[in-house]
Amino acid sequence: MSQPIIPRIGIATDVHAFDTDLDRPLMLACLHWPGEIGLVGHSDADVAAHVACDALFSAAGIGDLGTHFGTGRPEFDGASGERLLREAVRLTAEAGYTIGNIAIQIIGQKPRFGARAAEACQVMSDIVGAPVAVSATTTDHLGFTGRNEGLAAIATALVYSS
Amino acid sequence: MSQPIIPRIGIATDVHAFDTDLDRPLMLACLHWPGEIGLVGHSDADVAAHVACDALFSAAGIGDLGTHFGTGRPEFDGASGERLLREAVRLTAEAGYTIGNIAIQIIGQKPRFGARAAEACQVMSDIVGAPVAVSATTTDHLGFTGRNEGLAAIATALVYSS
Amino acid sequence: MSQPIIPRIGIATDVHAFDTDLDRPLMLACLHWPGEIGLVGHSDADVAAHVACDALFSAAGIGDLGTHFGTGRPEFDGASGERLLREAVRLTAEAGYTIGNIAIQIIGQKPRFGARAAEACQVMSDIVGAPVAVSATTTDHLGFTGRNEGLAAIATALVYSS
Repeated sequence: MSQPIIPRIGIATDVHAFDTDLDRPLMLACLHWPGEIGLVGHSDADVAAHVACDALFSAAGIGDLGTHFGTGRPEFDGASGERLLREAVRLTAEAGYTIGNIAIQIIGQKPRFGARAAEACQVMSDIVGAPVAVSATTTDHLGFTGRNEGLAAIATALVYSS
Repeated sequence: MSQPIIPRIGIATDVHAFDTDLDRPLMLACLHWPGEIGLVGHSDADVAAHVACDALFSAAGIGDLGTHFGTGRPEFDGASGERLLREAVRLTAEAGYTIGNIAIQIIGQKPRFGARAAEACQVMSDIVGAPVAVSATTTDHLGFTGRNEGLAAIATALVYSS
Repeated sequence: MSQPIIPRIGIATDVHAFDTDLDRPLMLACLHWPGEIGLVGHSDADVAAHVACDALFSAAGIGDLGTHFGTGRPEFDGASGERLLREAVRLTAEAGYTIGNIAIQIIGQKPRFGARAAEACQVMSDIVGAPVAVSATTTDHLGFTGRNEGLAAIATALVYSS
């Protein structure tokens, strides 16, 4: 009898505030968005990359961003979302899990994500080595994302015992 | 050896503002809610139907509501949540996926959802052709849903290669 | 041929306001947090335990917290998050489902969760009888959680037909 493959699921959200000094670039979904207002926060504040990391950690049951990239790990200070995501993928494998897929939704009024959605999916899937779907929505001008105070993202991931 | 069935997971959120002009009906979870304040926005603003569509698109990796029902597709202008959901189900099948199940949570202070939850689950499951669970919660009067400015919904879906 | 195991997925969010009278203890993830400001609301307002229950109900398609622990069930008035979670696990089994895993993320500026994350995972996994991952994040001081008005949590669960 073939061994049934039992996946594990993980979930994560993340929020970063827009940079009111207007001097940071926007990094989102491992892409640079020229001309868009950047986000402030840990590393390059790429909310899409960060939720992908945290969804993997959640699925594998190995803590969260703070555990792996917090103040105790100065080598990740200011690291790009891409670098954090590569490390999260490595840690997930090290914990004995294969990644099934990751689904990410970016929540905010801008940037207009649709035109670069396919590019974002391709870049993140290449980094992760498994399908990563990145979509986007707004909150209909309600709440802090609706007022353009920040950008949120939510993600879920499925992993399997290797 | 039987082929292992590897599901893919998707995630989505959606928000629509309540109609302050009080002249729209509330459509929610593919049901009409007489006497309740309606939502404004694209089509009938059925947040539960919309998140179900977006969770399917996310799981199948085929974009989002904007991709399929945006300004480039005028035939879906003003379409009901039910019609959008039927089309999302068709597009998911066309992409090669069978739907496992969809789980939706409606987030807001009203309407009181519990009394019609079973009806909503039945109607949406019939439309989708797979189990759809619809539940509800509040934000304890906090945030924009807590102030009754709008209604939010969150959904996750599991699909399989057909 | 071995029977393929088809999981079902569920999702939930929950929010409780911080107790401005400062006279309630903080119960979170089935742990007591001495010296931290408590939450108000139904039972002990343990948002992490509550989302775990609701994610199980959502995955099993058996309603939500209101269905099982609402005003029609006075025996659960004031029940602890742990007691509600034990009952949710029992109801999930009664509905014919085995729990694969539960993933929870706590969303708020405080308490600082990391130091007790491993303890929370252990306690909740023991209660559920399956892996429960509990992680935490902030909203970068935005929104109601960013203003310390309340604490939110989100969860997803995977269950299987027994």
